[in-house]
Amino acid sequence: MSNDILLRNLRPFGADATDMLIRDGRIARIAPGLPAEDGLPEEDCGGAILLPGLVEAHTHLDKTLWGMGWREHQAGPALRDKIDTERRLRREWDIEPHRQSMRQALLSLGHGSTAIRSHVDVDTEVGLAGIEGVAATRAALADQVDIEIVAFPQSGLMSRPGTLELLDEALRGPADVVGGLDPCGIDADPKGQLDAVFALAEKHGKPIDIHLHEPGELGAFSMEMIIERTRAHAMQGKVTISHAFCLGMPDRDRARALVGELADAQIHVATVATPSRPVPLAEDLRAAGVVLCAGSDGIRDTWGPYGNGDMLERAMLLGLRNNLRADRDVEHALWCCSWGGARVMELDGYGIEEGCRADLVLVEAESVTHAVAARPARKLVLKAGRVVARDGRALREAP
Amino acid sequence: MSNDILLRNLRPFGADATDMLIRDGRIARIAPGLPAEDGLPEEDCGGAILLPGLVEAHTHLDKTLWGMGWREHQAGPALRDKIDTERRLRREWDIEPHRQSMRQALLSLGHGSTAIRSHVDVDTEVGLAGIEGVAATRAALADQVDIEIVAFPQSGLMSRPGTLELLDEALRGPADVVGGLDPCGIDADPKGQLDAVFALAEKHGKPIDIHLHEPGELGAFSMEMIIERTRAHAMQGKVTISHAFCLGMPDRDRARALVGELADAQIHVATVATPSRPVPLAEDLRAAGVVLCAGSDGIRDTWGPYGNGDMLERAMLLGLRNNLRADRDVEHALWCCSWGGARVMELDGYGIEEGCRADLVLVEAESVTHAVAARPARKLVLKAGRVVARDGRALREAP
Ligand SMILES: [Zn+2]
Ligand SMILES: [Zn+2]
Repeated sequence: MSNDILLRNLRPFGADATDMLIRDGRIARIAPGLPAEDGLPEEDCGGAILLPGLVEAHTHLDKTLWGMGWREHQAGPALRDKIDTERRLRREWDIEPHRQSMRQALLSLGHGSTAIRSHVDVDTEVGLAGIEGVAATRAALADQVDIEIVAFPQSGLMSRPGTLELLDEALRGPADVVGGLDPCGIDADPKGQLDAVFALAEKHGKPIDIHLHEPGELGAFSMEMIIERTRAHAMQGKVTISHAFCLGMPDRDRARALVGELADAQIHVATVATPSRPVPLAEDLRAAGVVLCAGSDGIRDTWGPYGNGDMLERAMLLGLRNNLRADRDVEHALWCCSWGGARVMELDGYGIEEGCRADLVLVEAESVTHAVAARPARKLVLKAGRVVARDGRALREAP
Repeated sequence: MSNDILLRNLRPFGADATDMLIRDGRIARIAPGLPAEDGLPEEDCGGAILLPGLVEAHTHLDKTLWGMGWREHQAGPALRDKIDTERRLRREWDIEPHRQSMRQALLSLGHGSTAIRSHVDVDTEVGLAGIEGVAATRAALADQVDIEIVAFPQSGLMSRPGTLELLDEALRGPADVVGGLDPCGIDADPKGQLDAVFALAEKHGKPIDIHLHEPGELGAFSMEMIIERTRAHAMQGKVTISHAFCLGMPDRDRARALVGELADAQIHVATVATPSRPVPLAEDLRAAGVVLCAGSDGIRDTWGPYGNGDMLERAMLLGLRNNLRADRDVEHALWCCSWGGARVMELDGYGIEEGCRADLVLVEAESVTHAVAARPARKLVLKAGRVVARDGRALREAP
């Protein structure tokens, strides 16, 4: 397949219909009535809305049970129980990271995600097998979807000796981002974990993305330690806090002050828009200038039965969670699921303007808000100008 | 079309595959390998899961903009502004109740809802036109879907003189249920509104369904007045409180005490599982024995852009909102969207056992939880044994 194509009759972010010429995988021209050329493939988009490739900015490609048949949920409600149940079932059920990440990545691609940031478990049992499996998927799908790998100490870092060395090895290898997890709640050693995480980031010159489920003042305490280290290590713009449930605390003044500190330190937030938990409010973050990106988190895994990798559905959930109703506000929810994620992943040439990489999604809808509310199957998905999915399904077969 | 049919190879609520004979619109026999009969139509269900017809227990059929083209959201955030904007746009945009309720009812039917409780606006501007429009839809779809009409004083009852007489007239006519709305927040006359609502119910011998958005202690105050009147009028089992946001108040002991009172007075709760608001917790209500039913509320209307009438999606949202992960808990979310609604609507012969009315949905999924998580297009929907929808779409065309 070529990376040159002429797309006819599309509506960029819902604007008037136009044509779009793609050359060498980039958007070369946007104008109505572009001339046909010999040998240049054309695609009639039928007036569909053009969006930039969606960005799945927080998920776990190595964990999904997608395609493995329905399995009853086994874990109890506590975080620790979910972690331990998962470690057990990973062995018992053979949740093979390469196969499973291929399945989920292609599922996401079918829904229009052309970039994925995946946390991948690293612990003393699985070692680097998860990282290697997802790295193999990244290689196999190099021309289909950008995959960023976060080395993620899901079972604890300080509390599980040997994990730090494994993270270090992962970061010498295929991992792109240093992960972390509830430095109080999981490790009971916030100074230890956060010092280690920032030291790894500095050593490898890589960004950080820390899961922070800790609620209320406990989460705020950990968050302040992250903010302090972000400044001390001059890592502004390179640190993401995932979930950040503490920003949903009842004391809104305290939460807004924290958001102000995040903005000042240029720390990003990733959300799932969890309906059952307090969450950072999109409006607060936006007002302060903190980049909010979004993700599915685990998709149909031992943590829970939900999820399908559809970032338009995630935009809807973000809209519902934040009570966004006006079209411009719903469009911001979609921004989080596209431009927001691209900012966090530092995707080069992201967008739908001339000169941008032609990572694109076409969806039949009357307006962008309509697309979010109705979530129709994606008509067409392009990666660097090549058609990689049609009618909601990736062209490449999953294993 | 006949009301006799032999359904082959279906799995009732995910159990082992069997056949089901339907005679005169009721389930006559459930057993594997039922014999064919001359002239008896057969349908191979391909191992799909059989569910009872889903129940849309809280919506507004007269308000949807479905099929009217995408329109920008105009209302501000306050409840009052939404109400006033709606009254204005109802005229300006010609939101015609019969046409629009036909569209929404058939949309819901395509997703497997065979019973709908719809609140329908009654005010001094629209008069009974909304009620008459939805009643016409009920007549037109009498063999497709059960529609119950709540006469709903959306713009206020005590605060809008003339409305009470209109409600009275609606209840002498096609309305089945007495509606009410935020007796403090909208009418600033809780005693007046609630006395009037219960007097109407007594006069017409009809049940009650009251929208109660009032949060915290204000909602608790109104709720206690409703409980008191339910007992005084011996209306146990006949009163539903919709939304009941006050039950999501931070003081869980207070909320649970209220839930205990609701259980004692046999008052039901209807929820939308709103992610952006405190909501009654499914688990508290279930533990106390309060029937929880669910609905879409407004679908793509002047209140907001979301909604599609899919009660499997509502079950998913209910599951996400209540953090339900275990299969039996997700099945309870589906129970609320089916049996729960049937209890509230007092549907006769509801269920999937021999003798029940053959209001049925077939969905291709591995398990009931899988159906909720994945929400595949409904393979087949039957109403009293007649096929009324296939592959996610009602057979009857919407206007
Ligand atoms: Zn995660
Ligand atoms: Zn309502």
